[in-house]
Amino acid sequence: MLSKNKIKYIRSLDLKKNRQKYNSFLVEGEKIIAELLQDGNFEVELLCATPTWIETHQSAVALLKEKLIEVKENELKKISKLKTPNHVLAIAKIPDVKALKSSTETELNLYLDGIQDPGNMGTILRIADWFGIPNVFVSEESADLYNPKVVQASMGAFLRVNYQKIGFEKLLQQLPNIVSFGAVLDGANLFEMTLPKHGLLVIGNEGKGIRASVLEQITHKISIPAAKNGSGAESLNAAVATGIIVSLFKQNS
Amino acid sequence: MLSKNKIKYIRSLDLKKNRQKYNSFLVEGEKIIAELLQDGNFEVELLCATPTWIETHQSAVALLKEKLIEVKENELKKISKLKTPNHVLAIAKIPDVKALKSSTETELNLYLDGIQDPGNMGTILRIADWFGIPNVFVSEESADLYNPKVVQASMGAFLRVNYQKIGFEKLLQQLPNIVSFGAVLDGANLFEMTLPKHGLLVIGNEGKGIRASVLEQITHKISIPAAKNGSGAESLNAAVATGIIVSLFKQNS
Repeated sequence: MLSKNKIKYIRSLDLKKNRQKYNSFLVEGEKIIAELLQDGNFEVELLCATPTWIETHQSAVALLKEKLIEVKENELKKISKLKTPNHVLAIAKIPDVKALKSSTETELNLYLDGIQDPGNMGTILRIADWFGIPNVFVSEESADLYNPKVVQASMGAFLRVNYQKIGFEKLLQQLPNIVSFGAVLDGANLFEMTLPKHGLLVIGNEGKGIRASVLEQITHKISIPAAKNGSGAESLNAAVATGIIVSLFKQNS
Repeated sequence: MLSKNKIKYIRSLDLKKNRQKYNSFLVEGEKIIAELLQDGNFEVELLCATPTWIETHQSAVALLKEKLIEVKENELKKISKLKTPNHVLAIAKIPDVKALKSSTETELNLYLDGIQDPGNMGTILRIADWFGIPNVFVSEESADLYNPKVVQASMGAFLRVNYQKIGFEKLLQQLPNIVSFGAVLDGANLFEMTLPKHGLLVIGNEGKGIRASVLEQITHKISIPAAKNGSGAESLNAAVATGIIVSLFKQNS
């Protein structure tokens, strides 16, 4: 059974400031939680589960011990962010920032300069996971990686992708030789370029694009060409654009 | 001022059955509405706008006549589907199904077999708009094209893209010579294929993929290759996958 204080605590993690204060975040979805429990990098603080889940996950239950709270389905509804809550919900500790993967200068990496929509952020982590991108860097202004909607949209990618919040200037100091590619609306036609196997792809904010201060430090400005017969579309969704550009890089590597 | 009946009517358009009953749908966003008012294919039934919008859109006001209802911002909140309502909201008539564009057998077209998420559906329309895809066909089970979230996520693409709800079998009867490509998880590696300029790309449901009955009628099964070092990702978001595959087709055409 969930105490009022626990409900209040779990709900408070909706807000970034509380996630930072407690160093904890919410994870939902049976499949994602199964992966979370197997993953060695994340510490589970609390797991709320219905008798149905508990009955079928006895080995996990044995390991969780007093971290497990048995809840009824209507209790789960009070703390879930999903329209249709699953039988389980976890609170995990935010891990320490991981070291850069050594392949930083031999593979394609991502820098997200102000991605705001949590759905886009999660979807981009999923792209990074699929294509094996070693590092995803995000600017201070980007959506919080531990926002429940980011975690959800990432479909478990947050468990596997190496990500780090860092200013662009500071990142360039750490990677002085990196060649950067900024996705803009008036850049070089990506379909006509020969892309390298490595570099840093920079994706900007959904509405405003890449900040001018970042753009001026970028080596190449690139664009996904629109239809020649001139459609009226002004842009692509940021996650879709990321997927397209990453796949064009990966195609020849 | 909005009558209670009007509020009730506008809110009722949230449901597909009511959109079908009244043959009307909701449009929001100042930019999308500006495009809607310029577009000849859509009939505006009703436009609710604040004095701020009315003041700066006098030529539109003159044309709208009695279709315009002046509303206060708090009235707009009652009917808006947006967290932060704009100054304007329109009800438009669902247009008749357009004829197939003649380029059906010379360009790439899309068939969506059960896309459920309205955000994905809208984002895919935006992709079709960007790349100038002549026709987007959707199965009966797909999200409704006039769902407010689809309209919103399409960013105005619904005004320009030619789409049609049609069964796969029936479509093939109309296009007997078309070569079809189904996005699956165990298909031919897209990075190693030479893709034609035309055909029909089939994208399946977010969770279940393409239905077996459709899959068996598809000419080629194709996949976006995942990282060679084996990430744990099981799939890409459906709209992202669509964007990637369409761009690989367009790259050489």
